[in-house]
Amino acid sequence: MIEEKEKRDLSNNEEGQLLKWLTEEKIDEFRENFLALHAYDQARFYMKVGPDIRRTMYHFLSPEEMAEIFEALELDDEEVQGFIKEMDPTYAANMLSYMYTDDVVDVLNELDKADRDQFLKLMDEETAEEVTELLGYEKHTAGSLMTTEYVSVQENSTVRSAMNVLRREAPDAETIYYIFVVDENHRLTGVLSLRDLIVADEDALIRDIMNNRVVYAKVTDDQEKIAQIFKDYNFLAFPVVDDNLVLQGIITVDDIIDVIDEEASDDYSKLAGISDIDDIDAGPFKAARQRLPWLVMLLFLGMLTATLMGQFESTLEKVALLAVFIPLISGTSGNSGTQALAVVVRGIATGEIDEKSKLKMIFREMGTGLITGLACGLIVVLVVFLWKHSMMIGLLVGTAIFCSIFVATLAGSFIPLLIHKLGIDPAVASGPFITTLNDITSILIYLGLATLLLGQL
Amino acid sequence: MIEEKEKRDLSNNEEGQLLKWLTEEKIDEFRENFLALHAYDQARFYMKVGPDIRRTMYHFLSPEEMAEIFEALELDDEEVQGFIKEMDPTYAANMLSYMYTDDVVDVLNELDKADRDQFLKLMDEETAEEVTELLGYEKHTAGSLMTTEYVSVQENSTVRSAMNVLRREAPDAETIYYIFVVDENHRLTGVLSLRDLIVADEDALIRDIMNNRVVYAKVTDDQEKIAQIFKDYNFLAFPVVDDNLVLQGIITVDDIIDVIDEEASDDYSKLAGISDIDDIDAGPFKAARQRLPWLVMLLFLGMLTATLMGQFESTLEKVALLAVFIPLISGTSGNSGTQALAVVVRGIATGEIDEKSKLKMIFREMGTGLITGLACGLIVVLVVFLWKHSMMIGLLVGTAIFCSIFVATLAGSFIPLLIHKLGIDPAVASGPFITTLNDITSILIYLGLATLLLGQL
Repeated sequence: MIEEKEKRDLSNNEEGQLLKWLTEEKIDEFRENFLALHAYDQARFYMKVGPDIRRTMYHFLSPEEMAEIFEALELDDEEVQGFIKEMDPTYAANMLSYMYTDDVVDVLNELDKADRDQFLKLMDEETAEEVTELLGYEKHTAGSLMTTEYVSVQENSTVRSAMNVLRREAPDAETIYYIFVVDENHRLTGVLSLRDLIVADEDALIRDIMNNRVVYAKVTDDQEKIAQIFKDYNFLAFPVVDDNLVLQGIITVDDIIDVIDEEASDDYSKLAGISDIDDIDAGPFKAARQRLPWLVMLLFLGMLTATLMGQFESTLEKVALLAVFIPLISGTSGNSGTQALAVVVRGIATGEIDEKSKLKMIFREMGTGLITGLACGLIVVLVVFLWKHSMMIGLLVGTAIFCSIFVATLAGSFIPLLIHKLGIDPAVASGPFITTLNDITSILIYLGLATLLLGQL
Repeated sequence: MIEEKEKRDLSNNEEGQLLKWLTEEKIDEFRENFLALHAYDQARFYMKVGPDIRRTMYHFLSPEEMAEIFEALELDDEEVQGFIKEMDPTYAANMLSYMYTDDVVDVLNELDKADRDQFLKLMDEETAEEVTELLGYEKHTAGSLMTTEYVSVQENSTVRSAMNVLRREAPDAETIYYIFVVDENHRLTGVLSLRDLIVADEDALIRDIMNNRVVYAKVTDDQEKIAQIFKDYNFLAFPVVDDNLVLQGIITVDDIIDVIDEEASDDYSKLAGISDIDDIDAGPFKAARQRLPWLVMLLFLGMLTATLMGQFESTLEKVALLAVFIPLISGTSGNSGTQALAVVVRGIATGEIDEKSKLKMIFREMGTGLITGLACGLIVVLVVFLWKHSMMIGLLVGTAIFCSIFVATLAGSFIPLLIHKLGIDPAVASGPFITTLNDITSILIYLGLATLLLGQL
């Protein structure tokens, strides 16, 4: 474990040594040791040191070497802009030209329009053109994720010539482990893995050994769908085409890992009612700013609950005991609603719930709500009877629990499906929101019932 | 979009045709068309048809061909056992011998011990030995995820001989895109990508072109840590060694995608208080069974809240208005607690919060709680004053909100850290649980304050 740590991360010692070489301007020693590191470790070092040290790094490293560091950076809006501004514009444009186009797009997306245009002008023309096209795709689509550095060959070439193409393109292509086969109009017709190529006869024709049942995506497909395909088929890379099946780019598995992580985090933070869960390093003010919108919104929803309860003040005045069970009822309804919500939101996100299974899902949740409601209701009748020796109160609280769980479970499944139907991300019907809504309905059910039965209590 | 669907999934037409060939025992037509499909589509077809059709498939397909289908199956406990039991034991054992060892381990783990031992006896000796060793590793460790089908070469071989090894092993190895370099004791000394190999001079020595800063894991390392390394370094595969640095196996990116998905789902479902979120297809009874344990447990915790509130019955009797604000206060405290909890649980899961940053985290959350509590408290004082025209009630509710948010935020961050310290998965301090705990404290604070101030109200 300890050895692994040492090998993986840069030790303090190594870090100190690198810093020393930088401040003493010992370019050869720095380059020899720094360039032996994995790009991820280089990136961590780069982010850790201050702007002055970074400026020395720009002098010691070529734009091509810096490009590798930038590809490994976990980019955060404000930081990228800062880093780019530290560099000489020509150096920065040069660096961008050396990066894979999908990463260039990520960087440029963080800059304001004027800076973006300036860099596009400074970059070499071909790359600038490709990047401009990629910048045009909407966020979270296949088009915005793909890179244009792939290897393609013609159907009628031989294995030998394909291997030569591969050797030539290897230094620049983002992956050489899949070769995409196209016809004379650059339309995708097949795919081949490097593994197939290596074991094939050198004189065989690509057309004869390629796989022509290619799985591909359209440039406009949503990233969540792409992620699902990667999960199902275990691909390492995946072609993206336009409406005429013309090959436009590829998506590689490393970008998909980020997507899977991001989508899961996103659903999770919405369930908890926070805007950005990944920001562990934020100070208390930033953290509070991220959480307050939700809290305050829910506070006002809670006020609504209070207003509605105010209508029952006279009932509560007559039987104060009633108030004692309010947290129990609203809590239980909130819990069952969140359970249903979480299942449905994840099901929609992963594509397991589609048009056809929607109705089935709602019926399933109705059944589940009936069963859990009945079970919890009966337990409550029994416990309250044993505790308060009042069958009336027991039945009242039990019935309220039963109704609340049923309604909450149904709402927890129905509302996200409805929101999804309206074209909105169903995760916004997040945990705290649906909990507060269920609070209101459950209390209305409970106090409404109580008011009806007031004579009996 | 439609074309993509058609290409990706089997159309009903194709499916019907395959079924027809199977029932009419047209073996050649079936094999030609079925074997042209991607293994994932084969697996979907296999799972969809009934046991009778599957029995015909076992006759039409060789154990080796069936092995590919099994590798692509999304395995679920009960199903696997059923599938295996349908097969002739020798056929099944043969099939297992053709599968990658990590997948064999997954299958055997779903069988009971007697069946497992029977298959191990029937399998070829070498594979059985490797599998037995893998079965010994604890779940969720690198050892249980790795496969033994990797390509390794000696340091002093040439690029040419390495390429020959690669061609020979390509049909069996799980990945040929990384080649692991070992010394005479099979200790890991370097790594090389197929890309490096392809562009290198054929007579070069492996030792001279390999990368000797290898990132690796120990067999006992946790899968979450491995997933983090894949995310950081964008690897496609990754070596696993024992305590003496002897290479034991490799982990490939497709298995890691499943881990990332599983871990994220796991945290998410625990936040919602459900045991298994992925079971979209479960009937209402199964769904209810998965949710009831949490609901009932929280019901009893809720009873505790009710009991505690019972102590304040006389206060509530005197000022019934007090009850009106209970859902508001408990809801707000629950929400802020869940927010803090979610951030900390994810931070621990992703490794961003470690021993060193723990204390910093708690102080951050204290600060965040103070700020959000103050903001929400002030809003409440104002709103209640405007609504009820009572400064006293406004101050009481506002103070209760402030204290509750502060305590809930602190509890939401402190409790998971404490649980983690005790060696338990902090996600068990899940959303509904911490919400119910915060219910109790917030109501105690509120009614306690109210009782103290009773004379003034």
